[in-house]
This record gives sequence, structure tokens and C-alpha cells, in this order.
Amino acid sequence: MANNTITAAKGFLAAGVSCGVKVSGNKDIGVIVCSKVANAAAVFTTNKIVSAAVTVSKEHIKSAKIYGVVVNSGNANACTGKQGIKDAITMCRTIAGKIGTDPHRVLVASTGIIGHPMPMEKIKSGIAQAAEKLSDSQQAGLDFAHAIMTTDTKIKQAVRRFKIDGKLVTIAGVTKGAGMIGPNMATTLCFITTDAAIAKGLLTKALKKAIDNSLNKLTVDGHQSTNDTAVLLASGEAGNKTISKQGPQFRKFAGELILLTDDLARQMALDAEGATKCFKVVVNRAATKQDASKAARAVANYDLVKCAVHGNDPNWGRIICAVGSCGVKINESRLSCRIGDITVFRNGRPAKFDAARASKIIAQKEHTSTVDLGAGRESDFCYGCDLSREYITINADYHT
Amino acid sequence: MANNTITAAKGFLAAGVSCGVKVSGNKDIGVIVCSKVANAAAVFTTNKIVSAAVTVSKEHIKSAKIYGVVVNSGNANACTGKQGIKDAITMCRTIAGKIGTDPHRVLVASTGIIGHPMPMEKIKSGIAQAAEKLSDSQQAGLDFAHAIMTTDTKIKQAVRRFKIDGKLVTIAGVTKGAGMIGPNMATTLCFITTDAAIAKGLLTKALKKAIDNSLNKLTVDGHQSTNDTAVLLASGEAGNKTISKQGPQFRKFAGELILLTDDLARQMALDAEGATKCFKVVVNRAATKQDASKAARAVANYDLVKCAVHGNDPNWGRIICAVGSCGVKINESRLSCRIGDITVFRNGRPAKFDAARASKIIAQKEHTSTVDLGAGRESDFCYGCDLSREYITINADYHT
Repeated sequence: MANNTITAAKGFLAAGVSCGVKVSGNKDIGVIVCSKVANAAAVFTTNKIVSAAVTVSKEHIKSAKIYGVVVNSGNANACTGKQGIKDAITMCRTIAGKIGTDPHRVLVASTGIIGHPMPMEKIKSGIAQAAEKLSDSQQAGLDFAHAIMTTDTKIKQAVRRFKIDGKLVTIAGVTKGAGMIGPNMATTLCFITTDAAIAKGLLTKALKKAIDNSLNKLTVDGHQSTNDTAVLLASGEAGNKTISKQGPQFRKFAGELILLTDDLARQMALDAEGATKCFKVVVNRAATKQDASKAARAVANYDLVKCAVHGNDPNWGRIICAVGSCGVKINESRLSCRIGDITVFRNGRPAKFDAARASKIIAQKEHTSTVDLGAGRESDFCYGCDLSREYITINADYHT
Repeated sequence: MANNTITAAKGFLAAGVSCGVKVSGNKDIGVIVCSKVANAAAVFTTNKIVSAAVTVSKEHIKSAKIYGVVVNSGNANACTGKQGIKDAITMCRTIAGKIGTDPHRVLVASTGIIGHPMPMEKIKSGIAQAAEKLSDSQQAGLDFAHAIMTTDTKIKQAVRRFKIDGKLVTIAGVTKGAGMIGPNMATTLCFITTDAAIAKGLLTKALKKAIDNSLNKLTVDGHQSTNDTAVLLASGEAGNKTISKQGPQFRKFAGELILLTDDLARQMALDAEGATKCFKVVVNRAATKQDASKAARAVANYDLVKCAVHGNDPNWGRIICAVGSCGVKINESRLSCRIGDITVFRNGRPAKFDAARASKIIAQKEHTSTVDLGAGRESDFCYGCDLSREYITINADYHT
């Protein structure tokens, strides 16, 4: 079976080990290393309170080349002050020493509980142990995927294989986060490797666009963590001519990257805390792209819509109300709504529809609702998930 | 026992009857009539999709004087097109005919299911029946309070009695809404009567300020309905000299009105769908009043904070994360947070605190959390409630 882990792209080694940060004994230290050197791009949370790891990685990503990423789960290293910054740098230094590079050429990410000091002795020994195990095997990629999990119930990974200049190019991605949620179990991390040869500037451009159209279109409860980080490393080992301008090769690469991150985003929505299903909200005919995006997010975030989806209820009133209250331009006499392929609201008025069939559409693992604002020509979308009793159980009964 | 219903203010009659809109057979038509004539003020939802009742009342409130209010529950008369507008006008006309006034001098409000035509034969006969029963008795006030309920589990009313110019002045209020929530069971209605003599312009000013500082500070799930309406009627029968400028008499009246609406807002938070308790979020030292308001609302709306409150968990990480992600100015090195009187986060760092005592504070029916942004001098607050499995049950298992 083809390797479908983060080590599928040529030029990357990975490892995942347990060092005891997680009391469960599950893996909690992950490392990705580029065997030569990589162009790198990264995007980070826009929360004003960020983890020490984010602060340090924002600085390190300015380096011309990046050799690797070190990650721990179980502790977010957020709200940990100056000591937290020191600890994040120590993590970079520890792996840099093992692989023989400069600490500035390593990125760091953390995920877990906020406000607790990092157990650095455990973490340092874990990093040393991971360095010994670095491998390009599928097992090593799986170990890494497990090492970054927190409340996730399953690993989320995807691989795209395609040709550029007749050369096989691979992009491999792994992500964690039981939704975009969980400031206390601080949340989304995403690591992507590729063997494509591509200039750093274009890599950044492609990553930003892909994240904007995937992870940034996913909402579980509208919460953004202090630790969100997405990293893309490119080893250049596929042998294609380096992509250095926005021609067909770049569009091919960027398009495949969006398909990969979209796949990861849907895997996250399906594994969101308490979620039993996910849905896509498409907003068409908005006056502006911003309006389309805002309205789609408003519907996907609306607790009453999420409850209706949980109950397989084709409750268009809640969708219309969410759209009406989010402040976007609406032409009420043109406002329409579909659940799957069924029109439930047309030109400002309820439509007669087969409620049983609409309920069946919502009962699927994934469905799409479409809102037409009748106010312009712009479209956008958002992924959401249902809201269940299990979400409350996870987030109320869990104690800090 | 003193009358603590909407008829407590002199000059008002009320009634509440059942006409069969609600299948439960519970009361669903309410009427308030001023025995002479009233100055009136009203504020409405800012949702762009509004009920026909809101459209009609926005027009009627322009009349110099208002004689009464007619309300139905069980059907929101929203997304009902031109027929809905006709039906709302017919409701005004029906009660106006019974009490001998112009339909433009009557306000109308509806609450219930969105997108269903109004069963006007039932409603007209209900209004006629209510007109026969109009009375200034406590029972009539109670009947009205019951007639406006939807998913509310209890009636919410309050009375303030105080003196202006040595004359006893009464303000009485009644509200419905199991939170600010429920676009499908469209939601908050608030009716206030007073016998104070006060000019219409000042009445509007006092009502806007009171609602801004009470019902508009309440969030259950951030949802705003298509039907929200608050009405204040002043009969002038208390015998005080008409308040016509912003002196001490106006301040007294406006202050008492805020106390009344604050009381109603807290009663609503406690009866919010699935809520077991409510909490107040105070934000201090914000750069602007708008920042203070935004941050307080962000914390009160944050599902993970609401879950933590449900579980009596002093989880300050979720509060800090909510504040960090809502876009307000923060001085991180001064950022602090208290739960009740316990400092849990001080100057950007976790504080040592008695978690058991903090948990006890949260376990109370009502508590206050305070966030200090360290960025300025402005303050504001918001009321919220916990998020429980019962909320999901009410909103997922209920089918349209």
C-alpha cells in the first residue's frame, strides 16, 4: 500500500514518541526533518494571545531555509511568559543539535493545556529519543500523526500525487484539532510536506490561499486558538524545474494543495468534538466576497442551525435568521435557500418541499446548504458540524 | 399582596386568552390598553429579516399617541410576505374597533414559528374575546404574561415603585423569551407600562438606554430574532408634573427603568433554553466603550466558557482566549481576570488560586467574571448563561 503519511513526499524523515507530557502515555513529541534543506511557508493564529511556540516560529520562518519542525502535544506553552519563550527556543535548539543545524532553522509548535509551565526535562529527552528514530517509513509518518493529537479521535492525513514537467510530485499533509475549537486544549496544527521544487515566495502564496480556502473555512464553534499553526515544507527532490513564477506549473501545484487542505478540513469537521456529521454552507449572489464569507460563516456557526443539523431537521427559518442577523446586504425579495438540491425558501417566501427527503439529505455524513442573497455576484463557503450533547459532555465535564 | 404585573401602573387594562394558535391550548393572545391615551416608545430587532408585526409597529409608533398593544404567540408572522403585513394590520384594526380608536394607534407583536401563514380567523376571535376581558386586575396582568410565552418555563415580570414630585410612580414590565435565542420560535418581546407623565421624546431616550443596558446586554447564543420588540407605554396618570427635560426627575425615572429592565434581563438569562445558571461578564480598562462591550459579549457568547460554567470549572484559559480572539485592544502584560472575587490571571500570567472555592462561586445561580484589558479606562458588561445538554435537546429534537 502506498505511503499516505507525511513521509510520502521525498526528502522527509519523521518520528513520534512518548515522553510523558500526556498522562495517558500516548505519543506527545513529533519531529519532521528535511534530509537536505527545505523552502518553508507558515501561517499562524490571528488571536492576539499567542503561544510561545507561535512567537518563536514567527521569528524562525524568516530564515531562508528550514530544516525541520518539532512539536509537542499535552501542553500549549501559552500564557507562560518569558520562560515559555525560553522553553520554545530550547526545543528548537535540542533538535537542531541532533540534526546539526542552527536553531533558527527549526520551527516549533505546541498544543495542549494553556497556562502550565512546560515539563522541559521530559520534553528534551523526548526530542532526543525522536531524533534517534527519524525515518522516511510509513510507520514514522503514522507515529508523527499520533504524536500531535489531543482530543482528536482519529488521525487526519492526506496525500496528493500528480505530475509537473513529467515528474511525479507528492504533497502530504497531516493535521490535528477536534475542530477549530479548544482554547484550553489549544488546537489546530497542520504540517504539509512536498518534494516539489518551488520558490519560497510562491510556496507562501500557495499555502495562504490553500489555508484560506480550507482550514480557514472550517468552523466548529467560532473559536480560534492561541496556537493555530500551518507549516508547508518543500524539499525540491521531485526533480521538477523549480517553480519560480505563476504559470501553469504553479497553478497545478496550488490547485492540488487546495484539494489536500480541503480534504484535511473535512476530516477535521467530521472529527470535531461531539460532531456526528459535517455540512458545507455555500453563499451565492452576495454583494461582496466578504459578505459571502461572513454569511456562510454565520450560518455554519449558528448554534440553532447546528442543533437542527444534529436533529436532521430541514429548519430553513434558522438559516434565514442567521443570514439576516449577520449584517450582510440582502435583497429580501430574491433571498432563496436550498438544502442539498431541494429549494426550501424562494424569493423571500417559504417554498413547498418534501420535508422527509430534506431530512434524509441532512442525515447524511456530509451535505451542502446553499443561500442565494440576490444582492450581487460573489460566492463563498464555510464548513461546519452539528452540535451534540457530546460537545457539552467533552467541554463541561472535563475539568482543568 | 401588591400587584406585580403589567397592570400595576395606573391607567392600564390587560387581558390574555387562548384562541387555539398554540396546539397546547395555552393562552396565545394578549392585549394591553391604556384607558385614556399613552405616550409610547419602542425599539425593534436589527435583524434585516423582520416579522410583519415589526414592520407594521415601526410605522404605527410614529403616531403621536398609542392606545394599546396586541400580541399573539405561537406564530411569528415572519417570512409571510404581503399577506403577513395585511394580517398584522388586521390585528391592529380588530382591537382598535373594539376599543374605539384608529388602527394606527395600536402596536402589534408576534412570536412563534417562522414562515407559516397566520390563522386569522382564530386570531380575530381571540382578540375579540380578549377585548371583552380587559381589566386592571392582577389576574388580567398574569393572563397577559402567560399569553406571550413560547418556550419560556416561567413568566418574567417586575415592578418598580418610587416617587417623583412627591407622587407615587409605578413602572411595570413583562417579557418573554427563553434567552435571546430562537429564530424559529421567534423570540424576545418586552412590554412596559408606567403611569409617569413624561414627554414622548424623553420616553424614547429612556427606553433605548434601558434596553441597551439590559436586554441588549443579554446573550444566550448570540442569535437575534426577526421579531424582537420592546414597547414602553406611559399613561401620565401618576399625577407628577410632566417630565419634559433631562433634569433630576428624568434621571430618576430613567434609572428606575434600567433597574426594571436589568431585573427582566436576568430573569430571562436564568430561564434561557437549557440554562441552569447565569453569569455576568464585566470588562474594565478597555481602550473604548465599544471594545469593552465587544469583549464582554465575546466571553458570554463563547461556547467553551458556557460549557465551563455549566461544569463549575474555573477555566480562565477559555475566558482569555475569547478576549484574545475578538479583536479588541489588549495590553497583554496588564491583562487580568477574576472569577467572583478570586484573581485567576494577573498581568498576563496565571495566578495561584483556590480552585475549589472558585468552582463554588461558579456553582451559584449567578456569578460575575471580570476581565481587565489594561488598555484604557472604559467598562461594559454582558449577561450570559451556561450551555447544557438540555439546550441541544430543546433545539435538535424539536422538529419543524
